[in-house]
Amino acid sequence: MAQKGILVVVSGFSGVGKGTVMKCLVERYDNYALSISATTRSPREGEEDGREYFFRTREEFQRMISDGELIEHACYCENYYGTPKKYVEEQMDGGKDVILEIEIQGALNIKKKYPETLLLFVMPPSAAVLRERLERRGTETPDIIKARLKRACEESEGIENYDYILINDDLEECVAKMHSLIMDQHLRVSRNLSFINEIRTEVKAFSKGEI
Amino acid sequence: MAQKGILVVVSGFSGVGKGTVMKCLVERYDNYALSISATTRSPREGEEDGREYFFRTREEFQRMISDGELIEHACYCENYYGTPKKYVEEQMDGGKDVILEIEIQGALNIKKKYPETLLLFVMPPSAAVLRERLERRGTETPDIIKARLKRACEESEGIENYDYILINDDLEECVAKMHSLIMDQHLRVSRNLSFINEIRTEVKAFSKGEI
Repeated sequence: MAQKGILVVVSGFSGVGKGTVMKCLVERYDNYALSISATTRSPREGEEDGREYFFRTREEFQRMISDGELIEHACYCENYYGTPKKYVEEQMDGGKDVILEIEIQGALNIKKKYPETLLLFVMPPSAAVLRERLERRGTETPDIIKARLKRACEESEGIENYDYILINDDLEECVAKMHSLIMDQHLRVSRNLSFINEIRTEVKAFSKGEI
Repeated sequence: MAQKGILVVVSGFSGVGKGTVMKCLVERYDNYALSISATTRSPREGEEDGREYFFRTREEFQRMISDGELIEHACYCENYYGTPKKYVEEQMDGGKDVILEIEIQGALNIKKKYPETLLLFVMPPSAAVLRERLERRGTETPDIIKARLKRACEESEGIENYDYILINDDLEECVAKMHSLIMDQHLRVSRNLSFINEIRTEVKAFSKGEI
């Protein structure tokens, strides 16, 4: 049953460790492709065009929007972020499950265009653990931590639109569970209609003694 | 996260081995309860009331229907079959995932009443394998095998309404996959709203410096 890949959107609270989960997932299993976003924000130190992001000017980004080259785009902090369509569709056609790490606004736009998208939201085991993780980094002032927690709040407003939550308590468990959730989607009836019809037709032929 | 159990309906082609899959599942994991159907058909040799079925007269069965004691009932081959509500709800309230092995008509009735029911359909890896399995039993005439294949066809008409298919090629794999599919449902956003709200409220309080 060679199948088209699945589109998976992973979102989650700031500080929950979703980046690490996705990195492990892609390292451990070979069925994934990580989508790379286009953005108008400036590269941070160490970031490379085409690796972390496709860095584009505002004019180039506007052209990509007009030419329908993005499957979704959204604006945060006065910068545009978007998902290039070509890469995503090529990977899915090649059977890869494509993972996008995007925020809620973008996630819901994608679900509208591709209703079979799997929306996953990574949660901390508790709010206290989330705060601890942010504090443990030790590099951020209490005000920045508060701002990130505030952002986590805002992000959480759309969770009801997601399909599944994943709890990032133990990293290995969370990675395995994410993989299993994605694999299971390959068994959705709606993704197996041609296989179902094939069996149905053959069973019918057998029952009539035709073959 | 103590949760209410999940209602799972398992259907599948006659001869596909779904009985064996479910027996293994229940033996191997302790989160399941198998629902026992009520029926008006006569017990076959070796069948016991309250083990394979609750055997009831037609009058008793009619009374159960009138008193709302069944969550679904259907008629096959002039006999009634139904699922007693009390046992199912008690088990689910106690956190058990309840499995019903019923046919498509009953499955769809259950889904209407309990929209969160997980509908699984067990498929053979191919139609040829299904025929082989039926023939290998060696106890049935070609005509009976044809009749069972014909019934398999009829059963397959509603697969589109199911959530997932499972392919019973290797028994162990099929059992593990069924377990994983059911476990995943516990992570559905709709089943975790109180946990989500709890985290949300706490993160909000942290971000405001209230706690």
